[in-house]
Amino acid sequence: MKRIGNRTLIFENTPVIKGYASVAGKKEYEGPLGKFFDRIIFDPYNGMETFEDAESSFQAEAVSLAIEKSGVTTDEIDYIFAGDLLNQCTGSSFGIRDFQLPFLGQYGACSTMGQGLIMSAVFTDSGAARNAVCATSSHFCAAERQYRFPLEYGSVRTPTAQWTVTGAGSCVVGRADSGVSIAAATVGKITDYQVTDPNNMGAAMAPAAADTIASFFRDTDTSPENYDLILTGDLGLVGSRSLYELLFAEGFDIKSRHNDCGLMIFDREAQDVHAGGSGCGCCATTFCSKIMNDLENGILSNILFVPTGALLSATTAEQKKTIPSIAHLIDLVSPMCS
Amino acid sequence: MKRIGNRTLIFENTPVIKGYASVAGKKEYEGPLGKFFDRIIFDPYNGMETFEDAESSFQAEAVSLAIEKSGVTTDEIDYIFAGDLLNQCTGSSFGIRDFQLPFLGQYGACSTMGQGLIMSAVFTDSGAARNAVCATSSHFCAAERQYRFPLEYGSVRTPTAQWTVTGAGSCVVGRADSGVSIAAATVGKITDYQVTDPNNMGAAMAPAAADTIASFFRDTDTSPENYDLILTGDLGLVGSRSLYELLFAEGFDIKSRHNDCGLMIFDREAQDVHAGGSGCGCCATTFCSKIMNDLENGILSNILFVPTGALLSATTAEQKKTIPSIAHLIDLVSPMCS
Repeated sequence: MKRIGNRTLIFENTPVIKGYASVAGKKEYEGPLGKFFDRIIFDPYNGMETFEDAESSFQAEAVSLAIEKSGVTTDEIDYIFAGDLLNQCTGSSFGIRDFQLPFLGQYGACSTMGQGLIMSAVFTDSGAARNAVCATSSHFCAAERQYRFPLEYGSVRTPTAQWTVTGAGSCVVGRADSGVSIAAATVGKITDYQVTDPNNMGAAMAPAAADTIASFFRDTDTSPENYDLILTGDLGLVGSRSLYELLFAEGFDIKSRHNDCGLMIFDREAQDVHAGGSGCGCCATTFCSKIMNDLENGILSNILFVPTGALLSATTAEQKKTIPSIAHLIDLVSPMCS
Repeated sequence: MKRIGNRTLIFENTPVIKGYASVAGKKEYEGPLGKFFDRIIFDPYNGMETFEDAESSFQAEAVSLAIEKSGVTTDEIDYIFAGDLLNQCTGSSFGIRDFQLPFLGQYGACSTMGQGLIMSAVFTDSGAARNAVCATSSHFCAAERQYRFPLEYGSVRTPTAQWTVTGAGSCVVGRADSGVSIAAATVGKITDYQVTDPNNMGAAMAPAAADTIASFFRDTDTSPENYDLILTGDLGLVGSRSLYELLFAEGFDIKSRHNDCGLMIFDREAQDVHAGGSGCGCCATTFCSKIMNDLENGILSNILFVPTGALLSATTAEQKKTIPSIAHLIDLVSPMCS
């Protein structure tokens, strides 16, 4: 592992994603990525007592599936990095307690999947772990209750609002000679553009994504043309437009290479999700399904995955505070790319 | 860095604590450790609009002071690991946004200080960072509102209840030839003994501490006699008694070597705190004051610091769920100990 430029890490011992899995809800199944998910949860309770229990259960299912698909045994896994949007990250702590793995709870809001991949890469590249698992989840019903209104209110949503994805994703990371490799990473700084509208989180998060992406290009002396996809977490429609403008002003035109998990996961028009998807599960399910498939098959060769997170809470929103945001970047390379 | 036994990391490139600082409230100042804190916050609002803002402000103050005391410049710090008990860790994200450092949010409930120290040690030992900062905080008034009742209710507290510490602690970690070194660490597993009473978190957390401590002794082939202090996070009186029994059954008698931050920080009788202190700030302020002083001066030579965390939320408590818990262990060695 070596540091280059201001804040980019280059992994030299080829941490690769040995296994990955996604579990998604009914609405997500009905979207454009439906056929790529490993398992679909049609019942929002997933047979449990509460929405929160349901979220824990499908995060656990994503972890089980990722481990199974990796070919690694649980005994060979040294750490699990997980976190979620529920207060005090209980989706994770309740979800994965039965695995009996050393646990390091992560909180990056909707950027948690990226943070977990970086942690897993640092720990396995350095030898602190043989293999590490990362996981995250979100649940539309649990998130609405916690952040907005109980579903029963039937509140009207604003045009800039995003729809919390019901789903979970997990990856098993370890050193190997082949597989989709984590080549480099740039950890985000907390960015605050004084946006206070919790129904417009894309606008709040775009400056964080712009800052991290521009730093990575400068640190690595590369440009958008070097990557066949720059995939942000869940900026949605509004945030993606801001991102193009902010990066264009920095000299980087990413528009033709860019996509956003919040725009990929739903059909915005047909599924009435306004500005797109959001939640920890949004980029987790998108990444741990179609994106990883395409990297494995060489349809994508070298991508930048940039999950974004809005570091607010219901309390800070009620107190009319601004929304500090963050974005972490991971450079992933296909095994087909020699 | 090398792994020994089941889950213990030995740091081979001497990550040391280059600077540390603690900021504490009035009640903490009036306790037995009062004279060891770097700064005292007499106003629970710390001049801010809300208790939550106050917590952010004193976490920021602890970080500033720790950096100042370390002699390291902000430019030489590559990551900050921070987290807290407020929903969505906003104590940290609002508190440290102005430092403009790459941020990785941690959630370990009251074990967060330990988790941050482990992350800082792994990142600096491996070369992922030159220097890293970790920080955490808690605030009695903000925690009561979020987890229990608004202060205005004047609720009666149960005898097993603990008192959330108002305070913050921060450490700057980096490789160096001298200083208090982080020699080894054992990351905890989530342990659930089916305790459901959120007013008895010591009992919920004791099994997690017992599991981590016993694992460390077995991995390193050492015993309680090899350490002059085994300092748990905030088990308080009830949890400490459970810990002795659980470890005794495993063949380890730690009673004569043990102390607990929750018992050290307050005078339980005179200060009416029932079973002792708790909160992320409890072990953070205790560790980043008297304990670090004693390690620097050689009064303590080799200690095990074992912060514990109860991974519940107000929602899971209301839903009568059990309290999953965790404990991380860090072995710290005085520079006076050659």
